[in-house]
Amino acid sequence: MKINGKQWRTIWLQSNGNSIGIIDQRKLPHNLTTQIISTHEEAADAIENMLVRGAPLIGVTAAYGLMLALQKDPSDESLDKAYSKLLSTRPTAINLRWALRRVRKLVISLPKEQRAEAAKKEAQEIAEEDVFTCKAIGEHGLKVLRQVSNDRFFEKQKDPLNVLTHCNAGWLATVDWGTALAPIYKAHRTGMNIHVWVDETRPRNQGASLTAYELGCEGIPHTVIVDNAGGHLMQHGLVDLVIVGSDRTTSRGDVCNKIGTYLKALAAYDNSVPFYVALPSSTIDWELTDGLNEIPIEIRSPLEVLEINGLLNNGEIGTVKLCPNKSTSFNPAFDVTPSKLITGLITEQGVSCANEKALQKLFK
Amino acid sequence: MKINGKQWRTIWLQSNGNSIGIIDQRKLPHNLTTQIISTHEEAADAIENMLVRGAPLIGVTAAYGLMLALQKDPSDESLDKAYSKLLSTRPTAINLRWALRRVRKLVISLPKEQRAEAAKKEAQEIAEEDVFTCKAIGEHGLKVLRQVSNDRFFEKQKDPLNVLTHCNAGWLATVDWGTALAPIYKAHRTGMNIHVWVDETRPRNQGASLTAYELGCEGIPHTVIVDNAGGHLMQHGLVDLVIVGSDRTTSRGDVCNKIGTYLKALAAYDNSVPFYVALPSSTIDWELTDGLNEIPIEIRSPLEVLEINGLLNNGEIGTVKLCPNKSTSFNPAFDVTPSKLITGLITEQGVSCANEKALQKLFK
Repeated sequence: MKINGKQWRTIWLQSNGNSIGIIDQRKLPHNLTTQIISTHEEAADAIENMLVRGAPLIGVTAAYGLMLALQKDPSDESLDKAYSKLLSTRPTAINLRWALRRVRKLVISLPKEQRAEAAKKEAQEIAEEDVFTCKAIGEHGLKVLRQVSNDRFFEKQKDPLNVLTHCNAGWLATVDWGTALAPIYKAHRTGMNIHVWVDETRPRNQGASLTAYELGCEGIPHTVIVDNAGGHLMQHGLVDLVIVGSDRTTSRGDVCNKIGTYLKALAAYDNSVPFYVALPSSTIDWELTDGLNEIPIEIRSPLEVLEINGLLNNGEIGTVKLCPNKSTSFNPAFDVTPSKLITGLITEQGVSCANEKALQKLFK
Repeated sequence: MKINGKQWRTIWLQSNGNSIGIIDQRKLPHNLTTQIISTHEEAADAIENMLVRGAPLIGVTAAYGLMLALQKDPSDESLDKAYSKLLSTRPTAINLRWALRRVRKLVISLPKEQRAEAAKKEAQEIAEEDVFTCKAIGEHGLKVLRQVSNDRFFEKQKDPLNVLTHCNAGWLATVDWGTALAPIYKAHRTGMNIHVWVDETRPRNQGASLTAYELGCEGIPHTVIVDNAGGHLMQHGLVDLVIVGSDRTTSRGDVCNKIGTYLKALAAYDNSVPFYVALPSSTIDWELTDGLNEIPIEIRSPLEVLEINGLLNNGEIGTVKLCPNKSTSFNPAFDVTPSKLITGLITEQGVSCANEKALQKLFK
């Protein structure tokens, strides 16, 4: 996607072939800055501290992380160490494990001198596949948007299609295009009249900062709302559908996504608003069935709740304290939306109902 | 209630009898500062800009506002002008209209020279009644807390009773004691093992700032969470009940309260968590039946979403910008929770089911 007319991806191999470049997403929307990653430790740090985030993007970053480790030392020990280090960065999004397993499986049987090059090609392949996958999600999702738009009462058909999204599942969460936002980009480019309600998504505000930034760069009409507001909007017919991403999807169609997604799904269900999840099949954890009890939920620092980052009056990025000194916080980063609340899963292979049979049919 | 061992109320008549003192709640939890209000215009400004907030407290402030106007000019024109000015400050909470009507009705038939004194006595009476009402809500709510605590599985009875609350319906929202927090204060004072999950309550963060501050002052264990987290906690059995306040309650038991209340009610319902609303009967609007379509919802400034106040590193209270410059926001301040999602209404007269028959029985 473009920023100020220039084509960007969230991650790229530097021309020297032994480092990668990323956008430091902690600084957006205020500053667009990039960072060079030269070791697997730096890659792990970038994932853990959320310079990069979003399930697909952390998978790609981890794959490049293994490449960086093998370029320095292609031994089994080096591979194991880097694999463990990268895997331990964040527990919930399954793409991390998926990408790491994929690279490891490929290189483990190769002679040491071929491993770094093979890992590089595989990481690049994963990145390219991600772009392709997101484009396909965009195409399938576009059909959903058209259908929902056409299903509206005749007198509402001229109004913008109002889509609500939570957190950032846009191109900044992937290599390019995004998952939940890909259908919206496709729709906007085909001239569909569309408007996006952007949940700010506390505590890290990826909606207010990243989703709003992406949509602004593409010129797509959008309005930021607090996470509390979506239910009220749905009660008053101001949301035509909800689309979110997924960090891990069980074989039965439960979706683990950014904390608060479940509340929006409940409100959508209560108001008969279609609730879709856009996801690459790499987020499906075929080993799990019961999302609520089997998916590990990352607990992040209380400081993410007690304080908030933003742009100070002096133009610098700074922090303000929100709570009394005596107060503590609990900060689970994800929740699980049971499949019963989900209208459909938009994947690169097509749209599926959120149940085991339908997912099996599409993918196996 | 106490702050650092000293007894406080949120509003008081100054000893000169012709001005009132308030706590400037915009500065909490970082600074405890008071302000003197000497005219009805200043009272209106304090309500509109939320130096005082909370349905009961703005009612009392408005009553004192009429007193201030009549002290300067006791004519009908002066009364009408002040009444209109004060009524126009905030549209949703019904206590404002209730308190203004009550003072007006009393003074309109009196000779001009008696009006100011009568308004003063009535405003003081409303303030004292509010304290009495909140205490009674606390007593009735305490029985609810005990019941819910005893209804827990035997092996959980030794754990703290986990109460979730949204926004601030504590003593800072009233004259003293509070509505939703009154039962919690009573429970804590009787030695009940209690812990409160405090929704931060974007956009104005009255939970993170005011509720956390109140609970901290009383030494009540509490944990601040983002508004997105409550559903997840309920899914995992970490919430025993929810108690919130009300800004306006319809005759059928629909509750209009801070934006996001509805989402918590949905989650409570989905997880069989009791959902109670604590309210003085002055928040009941007997003229309304259909909460969703009849209650005017205040739309506040987009800046409350796009920026946030907090304590800067230099110890001053300041603002940081959260969103891209291009982005706008929509900021409805309240939502309506339909009565079907409400377990019970805790009033000064006792606990009622959220329906017309039960409310009529209790109050008429």
